[in-house]
Amino acid sequence: MAPFVHDVRVRYGEVDMQGVVFNAHYLAWVDDAMSAWLDAVGYRGASWAPPDEEQGWDFMVRHATLDWRGSAAFGDHARIACTVSRWGTTSFDVAFAIGVGGEVLVDVVLTYVGVRSSPGAPPQPAPVPDAFRSLLGPAT
Amino acid sequence: MAPFVHDVRVRYGEVDMQGVVFNAHYLAWVDDAMSAWLDAVGYRGASWAPPDEEQGWDFMVRHATLDWRGSAAFGDHARIACTVSRWGTTSFDVAFAIGVGGEVLVDVVLTYVGVRSSPGAPPQPAPVPDAFRSLLGPAT
Amino acid sequence: MAPFVHDVRVRYGEVDMQGVVFNAHYLAWVDDAMSAWLDAVGYRGASWAPPDEEQGWDFMVRHATLDWRGSAAFGDHARIACTVSRWGTTSFDVAFAIGVGGEVLVDVVLTYVGVRSSPGAPPQPAPVPDAFRSLLGPAT
Amino acid sequence: MAPFVHDVRVRYGEVDMQGVVFNAHYLAWVDDAMSAWLDAVGYRGASWAPPDEEQGWDFMVRHATLDWRGSAAFGDHARIACTVSRWGTTSFDVAFAIGVGGEVLVDVVLTYVGVRSSPGAPPQPAPVPDAFRSLLGPAT
Repeated sequence: MAPFVHDVRVRYGEVDMQGVVFNAHYLAWVDDAMSAWLDAVGYRGASWAPPDEEQGWDFMVRHATLDWRGSAAFGDHARIACTVSRWGTTSFDVAFAIGVGGEVLVDVVLTYVGVRSSPGAPPQPAPVPDAFRSLLGPAT
Repeated sequence: MAPFVHDVRVRYGEVDMQGVVFNAHYLAWVDDAMSAWLDAVGYRGASWAPPDEEQGWDFMVRHATLDWRGSAAFGDHARIACTVSRWGTTSFDVAFAIGVGGEVLVDVVLTYVGVRSSPGAPPQPAPVPDAFRSLLGPAT
Repeated sequence: MAPFVHDVRVRYGEVDMQGVVFNAHYLAWVDDAMSAWLDAVGYRGASWAPPDEEQGWDFMVRHATLDWRGSAAFGDHARIACTVSRWGTTSFDVAFAIGVGGEVLVDVVLTYVGVRSSPGAPPQPAPVPDAFRSLLGPAT
Repeated sequence: MAPFVHDVRVRYGEVDMQGVVFNAHYLAWVDDAMSAWLDAVGYRGASWAPPDEEQGWDFMVRHATLDWRGSAAFGDHARIACTVSRWGTTSFDVAFAIGVGGEVLVDVVLTYVGVRSSPGAPPQPAPVPDAFRSLLGPAT
């Protein structure tokens, strides 16, 4: 399965005094890439109808790693390739390869944890629904 | 009445390639200064008890103007002096003078509109409560 | 001349607790729209060759006004229509109409001032080059 | 050696629709905490005078990990405790424990790499100067 691809044009306000994208913005970009991916596959869209036991399921970021081999600059058109790199029972990892001109500059991996909320209690870890796994495809 | 003063240390990530604070951050700063002012005077704090008819009142930004005479730089300690510059019936203006080392670099004026919400309807303009005017003091 | 149009997909991280885009981000968006417009017309691109006396000219934001009639929300696809609304001798205004679904929600006007720099001196106001006016077209 | 402590008041614009600080801002906070720490110990200040062979040394973020146990909310006063957790030859790790009310909510570790630049060449890895190690103290 080809990775989902999300394109970002570097904004002037995202670039720091050294002429490169300030590090925190890469986290904002991959969050946005994940939103775009979920939109593209119809998660929570009109045709999203998981079984009853999967209602109320959500997921949140628990862990992030970022590795910089280089930096994007003002005017760059960055491309973010998104793939699930691990499916666990209640958690999963998404790998984001952020590149410019075919060269990967930053690797980000986010670990998401599935949760289910009940009234009056904090969210509890909950298994990732099969319907959700199907949307994003097998781990690569 | 002396203006309320809010101090901001310029963050590296707020500074652009030209070595000055990127323009959008000044709006974020004055929003934060307003929050700090409202905290300092106890708005919606433990002792905030407006009359019944003033319950449910809120306010939102309707208009903003920013004038740049200069720019803050990395490492600068900026000071934001906040004063109400106009009290209207359902709206009011707050002037923010953003300075470094005693020199004002940016003037921002925000016009807020008072609103009251009812279930199932959009917020409607509503008079600024006297209790709120008293908290921020007379216009200067 | 039709306005230049720049599209923005609202990012989750740009939306505040009230479910609307935090006010400072609109300034970041119009800055980005202006960059995209300048790119599209080839400003400082390969074919940008102003006369000698226009070399070294640049421009900076001096004044901004923002008017909110509404707010964009998470998932919205915002469209920013950009036009020059005034050409002065050393300054010019650009009007940005930010809309969602055909409805304008926020109007922003930026006043830019043309400057020229000399070594060892602060930038001085300088006339807007004709070549630059031609790129962005007549005021509307 | 007690950790360096940097305090942050959560800004309204940093909080997302779920009422918690948007994840990318934690990276911005720790970058700011590191700046504050370097200021506090006088790095590159008036009395910073490393030996000749250490001139031109700089460092950059190469790797980051973030672990969320919880989230800061609007109005929270967050405290960031900063310590060097590893000194290597050309790299070092700084651990940032971000807490509210004495409870650590987010752990961030940044790996910095020392570099030295020569004209016309990309920065090369370079040993961390002893003078720099002394400023931040032993690893804990």
